Amino acid sequence: MSDRDLRIVTLLTDFGTADGYVAALKGVLATDAPGVRVDDAGHDLPRGKVAHAAWALHRFWSCYPAGTVHVVVVDPGVGTSRRAVAVEAGGRFGVGPDNGVFTRVLRKAGSWKAVELAIAPDASSTFHGRDVFAPAGARLAAGERLDALGSPVDDLLFLPESPVGVGRGSVQTVDRFGNLVTDIPADALAAGGEVEIAGRRITSARTYGDVTPGSLLALAGSDGTVEVAVRDGSAALALGVGVGVSVRVL
Amino acid sequence: MSDRDLRIVTLLTDFGTADGYVAALKGVLATDAPGVRVDDAGHDLPRGKVAHAAWALHRFWSCYPAGTVHVVVVDPGVGTSRRAVAVEAGGRFGVGPDNGVFTRVLRKAGSWKAVELAIAPDASSTFHGRDVFAPAGARLAAGERLDALGSPVDDLLFLPESPVGVGRGSVQTVDRFGNLVTDIPADALAAGGEVEIAGRRITSARTYGDVTPGSLLALAGSDGTVEVAVRDGSAALALGVGVGVSVRVL
Amino acid sequence: MSDRDLRIVTLLTDFGTADGYVAALKGVLATDAPGVRVDDAGHDLPRGKVAHAAWALHRFWSCYPAGTVHVVVVDPGVGTSRRAVAVEAGGRFGVGPDNGVFTRVLRKAGSWKAVELAIAPDASSTFHGRDVFAPAGARLAAGERLDALGSPVDDLLFLPESPVGVGRGSVQTVDRFGNLVTDIPADALAAGGEVEIAGRRITSARTYGDVTPGSLLALAGSDGTVEVAVRDGSAALALGVGVGVSVRVL
Repeated sequence: MSDRDLRIVTLLTDFGTADGYVAALKGVLATDAPGVRVDDAGHDLPRGKVAHAAWALHRFWSCYPAGTVHVVVVDPGVGTSRRAVAVEAGGRFGVGPDNGVFTRVLRKAGSWKAVELAIAPDASSTFHGRDVFAPAGARLAAGERLDALGSPVDDLLFLPESPVGVGRGSVQTVDRFGNLVTDIPADALAAGGEVEIAGRRITSARTYGDVTPGSLLALAGSDGTVEVAVRDGSAALALGVGVGVSVRVL
Repeated sequence: MSDRDLRIVTLLTDFGTADGYVAALKGVLATDAPGVRVDDAGHDLPRGKVAHAAWALHRFWSCYPAGTVHVVVVDPGVGTSRRAVAVEAGGRFGVGPDNGVFTRVLRKAGSWKAVELAIAPDASSTFHGRDVFAPAGARLAAGERLDALGSPVDDLLFLPESPVGVGRGSVQTVDRFGNLVTDIPADALAAGGEVEIAGRRITSARTYGDVTPGSLLALAGSDGTVEVAVRDGSAALALGVGVGVSVRVL
Repeated sequence: MSDRDLRIVTLLTDFGTADGYVAALKGVLATDAPGVRVDDAGHDLPRGKVAHAAWALHRFWSCYPAGTVHVVVVDPGVGTSRRAVAVEAGGRFGVGPDNGVFTRVLRKAGSWKAVELAIAPDASSTFHGRDVFAPAGARLAAGERLDALGSPVDDLLFLPESPVGVGRGSVQTVDRFGNLVTDIPADALAAGGEVEIAGRRITSARTYGDVTPGSLLALAGSDGTVEVAVRDGSAALALGVGVGVSVRVL
């Protein structure tokens, strides 16, 4: 088997990069699946924020080729009764805690399979990234089938779906730029249309640079949904709102 | 073609690593150029600061072997009329916005070539990193010639050149340590010489550890230019100055 | 030689990822050892904190396969008389300053070898990562023996060993979550046991999720030692203590 036959593994965590925890995962992967390519998907996710991780994951899940193994470790319930799982959807694999982190990619894919991973007796109760998820990711990267990793489960934990009407929704995530990303499909926003949020009416534009610095705008965001932003600034700060606030296309 | 024949791609962005945007670029590269090696050059660049990115890029442009493709996405004008370009200089390639980010490497190289990249109608107007620059980087990584990527352009946008006299210049960038990096060639600073900045005279030393903790020093920096620093501290904070302030070797 | 025969190189630094310094190291490695795999072990280490780096390094040193080359650049004494060294212990290699950064892995390994690296006359006096350590790492990655890199040394600088009695020790490092990691072997902490720190008695639990949010707990940490933590919070902040404070298992 050549290196090309190995699946890629990506790592998405809230570990930061000051302590060497991420390197422990990479070392396990290098040991268990020699030659595997490991991509850092991001390690500065907000600590323990599963919904944020779920949104971030669906940003790149399908950008990678079929066969890619996405390991996600945003896992405030590590070592409790929450299950460890591996999933398959749209030809990609996911490995991580059963805490809702795969919600968005699985809902979008429609059909999916999942298995529960066994947790070895000698696994640390606080570092399943190293002791459970990386080893499982290595097995998938080396070509093992999902079925081989555990017993099938069909009752994964999903994050609640926010109620969406036509042109109505809410802020789902706030990115490092302070952009407010909603779940309203972008095509609901006509050119020159307006969006209502936090009692303000925001006029749409095509891109940030189309308004003056510091101005608010609504736009069709790169995630395919309506986004509210401030050019060269933060809409979250300008409006003083965040995840969960209602948004309506007028 | 073996993996070794693939060019390396580096990624330099201001996306941070909390949201999954960088992983979208890597996924596109993995899909479009299977087996390509992608190096994170840094994703915590100050948001939208083109001059900072231009300096950071020239720190490592030539450390990489000929053929390397450097993708730079510090792009506050994304989706406006600013062009998307690919450049070739000194045997390395660059892909990014035509906003001055290649200024330092192209000036240093002296001769260069550039082409304008087409922007597909279905490209997002806010995420050219994923939809324009990564695909172009993948084509170069796979061995395509620069000419194949677009029409030649010779009027790239360059950042203004700061006036430099013998032993005179200004702070060009401030790094995470608070070091003030100037554009004065390092050989202008004799051993035991002094530098004037912000009304202060700073004595030179060979390295940080040659002065007492908390002390200011001037030195021949690793970028080949005069640098002002504080041992175990920040010269930017100690002097209260930053990019643009004048510096003179006495 | 195929890519698989190349040793992996990891990079652990306090350079941050805003300035392009890390990319300079990677470029040198790519140039000197074509095809080498380079893993970011972490670049956001606290600036110049050698003891923190020593602990972080021992978190992942042995997770990687034999032959791996760990390059560590937390180096406040760069360019002074402190030596540049390469070490070998437990089948892995280390490259970095002789400032104590290898203390934990070498003590744990028991036996080790080390050589002093020559510093070329044209090396920058402030960036040995690029000019000394990366080139040495590339040579090891390409299969050179440790002996070939320099003259043997047996008097490496070690950080002082903190006095440890049975069930007694101190906080060795604080991670990004604010967890207080001690040097007391985890098996000293019986189920339901207690720990004394900062005049407080903390009850043990198996994992974070076993206590209510905001509560303090002591536990067997993933580094194999006793750890004091706050669920969904920071024990360092809650107790107002950090590295060096005494801890006792009751």
